[in-house]
This record gives sequence, C-alpha cells and structure tokens, in this order.
Amino acid sequence: MTTAPATFLADLLPEDQYSTAASDRADHARDWGTRPEEAVDPDVVVWPESTADVSAVLAAATDHRVPVTPFAAATGIEGNAVPAHGGISLDLTRMDSVLEVRPDDLQIDVQPGVLGSAVNEALERYGLFFPPLPTSGDIATIGGMIATNASGKQTVKYGKVGDWVLELEAVLADGTVIEPGTRAAKTSSGYNLRDLLVGSEGTLAVVTRATLALAGRPQQQRAGRVVFDSFADAAAAASDLVRSGVDVAALELIDSLSATMANAYVGGDLPEKPMAFLEFHADHGIDEEIDFCRTVLSAYDPLDVEFGDESTQADLWAARRELADATRAYYPDLESVAAGDVAVPVSRYPEMIERIHALSDARDLPIPCFGHAGDGNVHFDVFADPDDDAEWARAIETYETIVREALAKDGTATGEHGIGRGKRKFMIDEHGEGGVRAMRAIKDALDPHGILNPGKVLPDPEPGPTATDDSG
Amino acid sequence: MTTAPATFLADLLPEDQYSTAASDRADHARDWGTRPEEAVDPDVVVWPESTADVSAVLAAATDHRVPVTPFAAATGIEGNAVPAHGGISLDLTRMDSVLEVRPDDLQIDVQPGVLGSAVNEALERYGLFFPPLPTSGDIATIGGMIATNASGKQTVKYGKVGDWVLELEAVLADGTVIEPGTRAAKTSSGYNLRDLLVGSEGTLAVVTRATLALAGRPQQQRAGRVVFDSFADAAAAASDLVRSGVDVAALELIDSLSATMANAYVGGDLPEKPMAFLEFHADHGIDEEIDFCRTVLSAYDPLDVEFGDESTQADLWAARRELADATRAYYPDLESVAAGDVAVPVSRYPEMIERIHALSDARDLPIPCFGHAGDGNVHFDVFADPDDDAEWARAIETYETIVREALAKDGTATGEHGIGRGKRKFMIDEHGEGGVRAMRAIKDALDPHGILNPGKVLPDPEPGPTATDDSG
Repeated sequence: MTTAPATFLADLLPEDQYSTAASDRADHARDWGTRPEEAVDPDVVVWPESTADVSAVLAAATDHRVPVTPFAAATGIEGNAVPAHGGISLDLTRMDSVLEVRPDDLQIDVQPGVLGSAVNEALERYGLFFPPLPTSGDIATIGGMIATNASGKQTVKYGKVGDWVLELEAVLADGTVIEPGTRAAKTSSGYNLRDLLVGSEGTLAVVTRATLALAGRPQQQRAGRVVFDSFADAAAAASDLVRSGVDVAALELIDSLSATMANAYVGGDLPEKPMAFLEFHADHGIDEEIDFCRTVLSAYDPLDVEFGDESTQADLWAARRELADATRAYYPDLESVAAGDVAVPVSRYPEMIERIHALSDARDLPIPCFGHAGDGNVHFDVFADPDDDAEWARAIETYETIVREALAKDGTATGEHGIGRGKRKFMIDEHGEGGVRAMRAIKDALDPHGILNPGKVLPDPEPGPTATDDSG
Repeated sequence: MTTAPATFLADLLPEDQYSTAASDRADHARDWGTRPEEAVDPDVVVWPESTADVSAVLAAATDHRVPVTPFAAATGIEGNAVPAHGGISLDLTRMDSVLEVRPDDLQIDVQPGVLGSAVNEALERYGLFFPPLPTSGDIATIGGMIATNASGKQTVKYGKVGDWVLELEAVLADGTVIEPGTRAAKTSSGYNLRDLLVGSEGTLAVVTRATLALAGRPQQQRAGRVVFDSFADAAAAASDLVRSGVDVAALELIDSLSATMANAYVGGDLPEKPMAFLEFHADHGIDEEIDFCRTVLSAYDPLDVEFGDESTQADLWAARRELADATRAYYPDLESVAAGDVAVPVSRYPEMIERIHALSDARDLPIPCFGHAGDGNVHFDVFADPDDDAEWARAIETYETIVREALAKDGTATGEHGIGRGKRKFMIDEHGEGGVRAMRAIKDALDPHGILNPGKVLPDPEPGPTATDDSG
C-alpha cells in the first residue's frame, strides 16, 4: 500500500493548492483523446505555484512511491497528461507567467502553464513571435508543447517546438532542480539533457521554466489555396514543392472527403476536391517566391490557384481551419478510433496517402486525411460505429495497419502528438528492442521508483510504482 | 588486471584490422590540442570496417572491461578522441563511405569516417549541400562532428551539425545496435536518444551511420568585410545585425591583435583594426538584404565596407581564413594554454570581449579574440611562455577566469569544441551538481562498466573501468 497522497501533501502545501474533490479528480482524468471507459481519476489534484512546490511534491511522491502525472490544458489526444494509475495530477496551470522578454537576444522566459497565444501577445510590441506554435496554440500550454515536442503548420519552415527551446528548468523525480541547455545560441557542453526532456511527456522530469528562442515577424505574409483534380496530383505537388526548395511557411493538404466534411461544416461552396493551403513569410521578394511556387504547381494541372494577402487568409484557409471540428461533426453515429499522426519522408508521402485511401476502400471505412504535407505528416481518422463490435475491431486493425505501414516507409508513429498511452504498442516496431531497452534504462536511471507519469511512452511491461514497492 | 585487448581481438578481426605497433599507438595518442606531456598511448588500435565489427569489439570490451576511445581525424582540441586510460583506440576512418543520397528527401546516409568535404562533393551534382560544416570540414569527419555537436561559420543561419542529423545507427557499450531518430522530417516518438548521442563524444555509444538533412545550394551568394575603429563598435554592430534580423549566412569578427597576426602571416596590408566578415545566401533579393545590412552597419561608423561576389570572397576573407595558423605562427616562443571556445547570448557578446581585452591588459598576456560573433561564440588564445612557470600558471588562471565569466553571463564553456578532458573542470559550474549527477546516471545506465571513452565529458571522480572491476 502506498500512502494516500493527501496525508503528506498537507505538510507541504496550503489547502487551496490541492483537492480530493470528486469533480476536480474527474476534471483531470480525461484529455481530448480519452474514451470514457479509459478514464482513470487521480487520487488528488495538486496546483503548484512555484518550482519549490514542484520539487517538494516530487520528492515526497518519490519517498511515498506515489505516481505523479503532469497536467495542464489537457488538449493532448494520446492520454499523455492523464493518469494511468491514479496518484497525483500535478496541474501546472497556475504557473502561467511570462517571466522575462529579452528582445536583444530574441528570447523569452516562461512558466510551463502559459498558453501559446499569451506568448505571442507578450511579444507583439517587440515585433517578435514564437514560430513553431501548433494549430492548438490558443488553448494549449507551452509546457504541454515541450512535453510532446509539438509542432504545427509553420514547422515546414521553422521547425518543431523543441528546435526553439534553449534552456529549461526542470525538476527530477527526487526533487532535484536542473537547468539543462543554455541561453547561448549554441553549446557543445555535456549531454543534451534539454532535448532528452523535450518530448518525454513528463516521464523523466517536470519542466518548471523554459527559455524560448524567437524570430522577427516577417514583413511580408501571403496565403494561397490550390485545388487539384486528384489526390495523387496534390500529394505529388506537395512533395515537389518541398524538394524544389520553395520557401513555404505552411503547406497543408486535405483530401476530397475532408473537403466534403469542411464544406458541410462551414456551409462552403468549395469544390469537393483535394486542396493545398499555403502560406509564405518573407522580408522581401515574396512575389518572386510565389511566382516560383506557381511554376512548380503548374506541372500538376491544378483546377484552381488563388493567392491572397494577410486579410484574405482567413477566408482562403477556412476549410483547413475548421477541419478538426468538421470531421467530428460529419458522422454523428460514427466515432474515430484514434487520431492518426504518422509522418514519413516527404518523397513517400504520396504513396502513404494512396495506401490509406486504398485501405479505406477495402475495409469500407471512411478515413479522411489531412495535415502538414510539407513535413510528410498525415493526420487521419478511421471512423466506425462504436456499437458495432466487428466494425470497431476492423477499424482499430486498420488504424494499426496504417501506422505500421508508415514505419515501414521509414516514418514515425507520431509526428507531433506524442506516444502517451495510445501509441506505446508501436514503440518496439519503431525503435527496436534495443532502442526501447536504452530508453527504459534512462527512465530507470532518472526515476528509479517510476513515479513520473507511469504507463506512458514506454511499452508494457512497465510496472507502476505500487507493483514494485510496498513501502510507505 | 584487464585482459590485454589484443588477445581477444584476434578472435574477432583479421590481422589487418588491429595493431599494437608503437607507431600506430603513438599516432592515436594526440589530437590538435594534446600537449606532449598529456599524451596517453592506447594499448591497441582497431580499424572496424562494419557495424558488426564495432558491435563485436564493444561487446568484447565490455566483457573484458577494456576502455574504448572512438577516433577518426583527430582534429579535436580537447582530447575528445584520444585515450585517457589506454585500452582500444577505435579508428573509424575505414568506415568512410557515402551510402546513399536521396535528393527527393534532401537526405544523405554516410558512415562516420567520411570527411565533411566528401559529403559536399557527393552532393554537388544534385545542387545540394550540408550547411553546418565547421571551418575544418575539409579535414574533419562527420562522426567527429556529431560526437562534438560541431558547428561553423554558417551556423548563424543554418544551425549546428546536430540540427541536421535525422537518424543515427549507433552501437551501445554492450554491442547492441540502435537506430535513434527517424527519416521523417519530425517525430514525437519516445525519448530523443538521437540528440542525446549527438555531442556525447563517444561516451554513450559509437555512431556507425548517420542520415543527414540537406539544403539546396543558394542561387545567390555574396561576401563582405567591414573594418571598425574599435572593437566595441564591431561587437555592438554584430549584436545589432543579429537583433535586427539581417539574414547573414556568416558573421565573423576578429580583433585588432588577430588582424595584426593575420597580416603578418598572409603578408596583407589590411588595417590592423577589428574586422567583421560577412556572407549572404539567398535565392533572390540578396541586394536588398545587403542594403539592409549596410543601413544597420552605418550606425557604427565603419572605416571601410566592402562587398563582393563569390569570386572575390576568398580575397575578402583571407585574414579570417588563415587566422588559426596565423595565431600559432605569430609568437614563436609562446604557446596558447588552451583554445578558448566560450559562447554567450549575443547581447552579452560586446561585454564578454571587452572583459577579455581588459584581462589581457591586466595580466600582461596577449589574448587574440576571433570567432563566430553571430552566435556569440568567441575563440581566444591566452599566450604565455611555457618555460616560465609563473607566467604559464597566470595564463591558465586567466583562461579559467574567462570561461567562468562566460558562464556567469548565461553562456557556455564550449560553443562547438566539446568538453573532452580539458573542460571537465567547468561542468559543475555550468550544469550544477544536479545536472552532472543526472548525466552520470545516464552514463552509468547505458555503459555500466564505463568502457566508452572514460575520462571524458564528466568531471572527476570518474573511475576508469580498471578501478572498479578486477575481472577478466
């Protein structure tokens, strides 16, 4: 038996910083991807207000062998931030300050609970921005983005969140505070603990501060939308744009099923055809870049090509922007078995999509595809009737087939959502027994009692702390 | 007693793949930075020709508790690739192939012993290049660059070597082969072992293959040189260029002492004044960028500003290019106590250089400064008479003072050369006791018998394998 966490928390924190109320516990049991039957309530929710709070809670949790799951906006979709084994939900949303902007160094220091949009608001007066924000940047926190190494539509030009993290403050399982990374533009000093923590989903440490690198806002910005007759053309064009070095700041693709869904949702009159959505950033010469883009596109006989300025981007991009909601709304009786997030080398992107569409036909399941084509990142949903056990099982098998085919094409099981609970089954396929063993050795070295977010990232068997320790 | 490595190597490799000849051992005892009294010969030199060879040697070395130090071009300057404790020198220069170029994915697969220049030669026909090559790219190997997370003059635009590594094949201490990373453009899958290995100097694994990302050669390239009246002006201008977002592909600075040395070496007639060396890459609009650069520079009253095209870059840059040799040649009776390589946030760069010059005056020691100003990276040499014990000690103390002042300015002890043996004394200052403890936990987890490059990166006490194991 472990100690009930609330008993030792009372010695560490004032009463308004933790709660065992059923409503608070239930609020911390689900993220966007959690199905009701999967939800596991934490035993207690803790709201740290400082690095010292986090350190004290983790040290006590290690002493008492209590699982701790870092939590913030709960916009993840792989169960990344919700408990698999009860214990403490460590809610970091009170640590949501912008600590310092250093415009001369193009740097900002923030706490983990700050929203992505709040970072850009703080930067506006300096003419700076944080480029790798995911599409969910308005509602997701920087800490969560670091935990999953998130990325977004501008990653094709600017890279991932992890590429813009210079220095972290993080608390290890035993309460030790470390500051991996540096505020210098580069370093070759010691092991890169910073990039090891980025994407580790709170299983190795809890991030309590981040120094992020910034970029100047581009002086020119334009957007575009291209309609293709076939997805093969659209995918080949996207791959060619990247290969040709067209300097796109976003290159998104949706298939015709996604276009149909978006039309239904936004009441649009777009052709129900595959479409590419483009964005360009530059300080000068943006027209030459768009001309170059048109030249590359012309080889693929687009049905329609439209470019606009910043003021018309919202219109041009409407179908792409509303797509996540549109897909959820389109089939009221069906559900997506899981949110697909594979990425493959960009030359394999056309065949990847073709294979998904072939599986959709063969298994008689709707599978809309969309996502960040410029990165070879495909989002897809396999829709099925949750009350039809056979169909549901077929959909899950189809989803898994798609992920394994992405791995066979030198790809990854997750381009930006992380592993969480949902994708642990693909870890050995992707990283090999040896790679997973090395990851587990690192986990055991930094968190010997397995208190940090157990049941995530690494595949089973990974006994939670209660299975190996009876102390407390 | 450990087993003499040659006895078990005979079971693993043909005779032409290892040697205990004194000349071979001596050839593998020194890098560019090793002083004669520091050289430690390996017991045996091994030339693996395949991943299987590396795996077999490491597994046997772990069984027999024999240190293994990966070695290639020996262009390091911190003792990174030469033994601290004898054992095996694992010379990777026979694994020097370009395995595959995938131009459609902007990727190349190489073995670790390939020279940087050979990579770019293989890419020339595709119009591609590997952007982060260090200045020593013609003579240094990709494996060594990965081991130290090297960088170079174009890092200000393109980033470090580590930013361009997509996937590795690497052999762990027990012989396990892993493939961290992915060939997709991005991933959020599992722990980032790839970036943990990059910069770990062969202390965690031996890299046997790398997939590198590539860029298209810019269609426009121009170079420039700017002479300033004072170093304060030059440093402030460099900092301002970065802050203003001028898209430079290189931004190097040398101080007036360095200019004097370069003049003496190349027989030049440049003013003996601080100078900035610039490079620009673009597909279009390069003239607008240079105009923008001139505008920013004009605030610092440069004595001379000269821009040229690719054909005149060699002339414009001569003083910078020959500087490493020039500094070595300038004081025939003095030696540099160590090659300084600190980096600080770019806003702190002017005060960092000012402090070094003040220390040079106060301690009566010549300390030329040069390097990658755009990254806040300062190379400096503290010159002293090695036969004057008091002066030599004063120079070492001065060198250490400069490094610690860089750390106090939120900087790093090494921007690109790595820790090796020489900079281990700064590890706790830079990373804290907790950070170094976490690094050591990872080292112990992946290499429990400490056979991989012992005596590097992590500070003492780090007992070599013979001190803890008497087996064999």
